[in-house]
Amino acid sequence: MRKLSLIMFSGDYDKALAGLILANSAKELDMEVSMFFAFWGLLLVREPNKTSEEDKTVLEKLMGSMTPKGIEELPLSKMNFSGMGKKMLEAMMKEEGTPSLSNFLEGARKKGVKFYGCKLSVDVMGFNKDELLPELQIIEAKDYLKDALESDIQLFI
Amino acid sequence: MRKLSLIMFSGDYDKALAGLILANSAKELDMEVSMFFAFWGLLLVREPNKTSEEDKTVLEKLMGSMTPKGIEELPLSKMNFSGMGKKMLEAMMKEEGTPSLSNFLEGARKKGVKFYGCKLSVDVMGFNKDELLPELQIIEAKDYLKDALESDIQLFI
Amino acid sequence: MRKLSLIMFSGDYDKALAGLILANSAKELDMEVSMFFAFWGLLLVREPNKTSEEDKTVLEKLMGSMTPKGIEELPLSKMNFSGMGKKMLEAMMKEEGTPSLSNFLEGARKKGVKFYGCKLSVDVMGFNKDELLPELQIIEAKDYLKDALESDIQLFI
Repeated sequence: MRKLSLIMFSGDYDKALAGLILANSAKELDMEVSMFFAFWGLLLVREPNKTSEEDKTVLEKLMGSMTPKGIEELPLSKMNFSGMGKKMLEAMMKEEGTPSLSNFLEGARKKGVKFYGCKLSVDVMGFNKDELLPELQIIEAKDYLKDALESDIQLFI
Repeated sequence: MRKLSLIMFSGDYDKALAGLILANSAKELDMEVSMFFAFWGLLLVREPNKTSEEDKTVLEKLMGSMTPKGIEELPLSKMNFSGMGKKMLEAMMKEEGTPSLSNFLEGARKKGVKFYGCKLSVDVMGFNKDELLPELQIIEAKDYLKDALESDIQLFI
Repeated sequence: MRKLSLIMFSGDYDKALAGLILANSAKELDMEVSMFFAFWGLLLVREPNKTSEEDKTVLEKLMGSMTPKGIEELPLSKMNFSGMGKKMLEAMMKEEGTPSLSNFLEGARKKGVKFYGCKLSVDVMGFNKDELLPELQIIEAKDYLKDALESDIQLFI
């Protein structure tokens, strides 16, 4: 089976959209798909209503509170204009009947895209396991590489 | 024949330069090259003097007027300083006798790089077909994936 | 032997970290690794204490003085907040006992990661050979492509 491997590094709304559309489309072509969420990319797999401050250092609490609390809160990589540009894009997507970012995330989850989180990033940012999507497996960069070596397409988004 | 497949997602001058230099160089090595323009990347394949407002919603007109009208108008991804940083880079390129971004785009077109536009992005941003380069073929994410599966190198720029 | 090929385009601290962690991990898996530093990516391989103004044009001197003088001076791609966000990330990395960015760079150098610099970028930015790490080989985009064609994973960071 052909396989797509994506590193989701950026925490941008538009890049999240690009990655998730590719992931959904690849599953519809019967490909295997792995998404490896690292660094800001972890903000895509944050459980919207499960922020916890348990066992966190002062800095980890601060990081948790300063960053978007769920995928719909992510900013645009460009022309965000404090959220106005994003509101505009969302409205334009609605006009076209395009599903929302959360819909694409749900689609990817239902279709069986494999979700991996970068251990180092999770540790440094101080996320607790229950603040992230339950199916997210925490793995190391080496595990990502082994998985990517078995893939036909690898992208860093 | 070896093949290079690029997703041009960003609408930045410097990243456009990187992608187009790779595309031109690959053609000089007798490789096949596909460029898939998605999202902000569509700003690279906008016809400079053909903005139209026909059949556009208010938001689509606004998006059309807020964004760069051609490849030379793209901003830098960093140190743009409202265009000053870009002017500086352009002057430095001139000092070195480096071709301009439009030259690299023309080169890619003449050498037969295949240009694809992402259907969803075109629809959401509301571009009319005649506002984009005539050889641009509008395809879906699935078509990109099929093309990328036949490629030896795939990059997301 | 399996091979990883990275284009380091961005001059961001966090993306440099991602690239260098992948490079180190790949070497630990006995893979070959090539890093091709282009454009802002050249700021990662600048010798911290060897800025020279010899044979530089006014613009090249200006570019040299406006940009980070070594890998630890790179800004974050997001939430940099004039350096405060970066200080915070560095403190969080320290809390976790994560090596610093310079440590990962030194690790990559010791493990034999191959360092290449993009000729066009070096010329345009006006860097002198002795301002960059001594093992950096200056090559053209075509040479990068030939090397990438022999690689199993290619990423643009």
